Amino acid sequence: MNSYRKELWFNIPSRRGFVNITPEVKLAVRESGIHEGLCLVNAMHITASVFINDDESGLHHDYEEWLEGLAPHEPLDKYWHNRTGEDNADAHLKRQVLGREVVVAVSQGRLDFGPWEQIFYGEFDGRRRKRVLVKIIGE
Amino acid sequence: MNSYRKELWFNIPSRRGFVNITPEVKLAVRESGIHEGLCLVNAMHITASVFINDDESGLHHDYEEWLEGLAPHEPLDKYWHNRTGEDNADAHLKRQVLGREVVVAVSQGRLDFGPWEQIFYGEFDGRRRKRVLVKIIGE
Amino acid sequence: MNSYRKELWFNIPSRRGFVNITPEVKLAVRESGIHEGLCLVNAMHITASVFINDDESGLHHDYEEWLEGLAPHEPLDKYWHNRTGEDNADAHLKRQVLGREVVVAVSQGRLDFGPWEQIFYGEFDGRRRKRVLVKIIGE
Repeated sequence: MNSYRKELWFNIPSRRGFVNITPEVKLAVRESGIHEGLCLVNAMHITASVFINDDESGLHHDYEEWLEGLAPHEPLDKYWHNRTGEDNADAHLKRQVLGREVVVAVSQGRLDFGPWEQIFYGEFDGRRRKRVLVKIIGE
Repeated sequence: MNSYRKELWFNIPSRRGFVNITPEVKLAVRESGIHEGLCLVNAMHITASVFINDDESGLHHDYEEWLEGLAPHEPLDKYWHNRTGEDNADAHLKRQVLGREVVVAVSQGRLDFGPWEQIFYGEFDGRRRKRVLVKIIGE
Repeated sequence: MNSYRKELWFNIPSRRGFVNITPEVKLAVRESGIHEGLCLVNAMHITASVFINDDESGLHHDYEEWLEGLAPHEPLDKYWHNRTGEDNADAHLKRQVLGREVVVAVSQGRLDFGPWEQIFYGEFDGRRRKRVLVKIIGE
């Protein structure tokens, strides 16, 4: 069994944003030399998500609106977490809806994807450097 | 390390529906010959889910009502994604709540499940052929 | 390839609660002797979650309030599932928001975590003995 590890770094200039990281994950799979296995991609920060969906800007707008409805950023004092001096309680909630991680099959040396699957980094508390971990195991 | 790959195909006759796919996944584990490992089961389409919960029709009704409340199908023009000509923006949202995938342990040649765990395919934009991927790695 | 399996048992005295299980999972990784691989941690019951977020009591209060807003426990007869004699339909919904499982990379013999990642057991229908499965594969 072989394994490969890589970190991807981000610095989203706004509080929230989505970035298509599929090319970086594909590159990691190639670098790993692994042909059959599993590829874990996870946010290493607890106010960010990694998820798989469509690379369509209208949909990303819908996600943003929808998550803001489910877990509004304001009023800040609605959240006990913000009493610690933070203003990102909503980011901890939003990240749970989209999820921390994805696990993708690697088959014949490639990400084993359906027709429209793309991997995204979802930032909910940006304006600082944050990381995603790619870990691939297999043969 | 060994690996095994199988696709399961569905054509749900309505827009939404839940299908218990536990027997098909159990069969894939037997076919794989793998005794100790991990089994990934994921929707290959971005308007469908794979999740684990109870095989109880009342609960499935509750999921349907609940998801429709969290991400209503209508009005269609509420979602920017539907301006592309689609009418399935809500399906992209609903799928994120129930999730894209499950990872299940394989122990002693079997799915390592608690007493009530069952694997479901959750369709949110049906009436066409769609796929689930089963990928098992281990020994 | 090696594998390791361990069950963690809980008996939360109230209906709902969060428990930091990171020390137990770290111990399992050490016991496994695995240096590079993947660690699956999943609830074996369908009214409980395993998720990764911050060990901050204010945030846990926010999760509790937020989930109760998204999927209220009462009125009980709002849920068809409760017609079976259960009173835990909301627990089946809440568990889907926080998720069934996490998959964590194991690198150099340790959980490969970002700075604030901690693993939690989330109970939504407690007052009885329930289990979490830890399954580690790798080398």
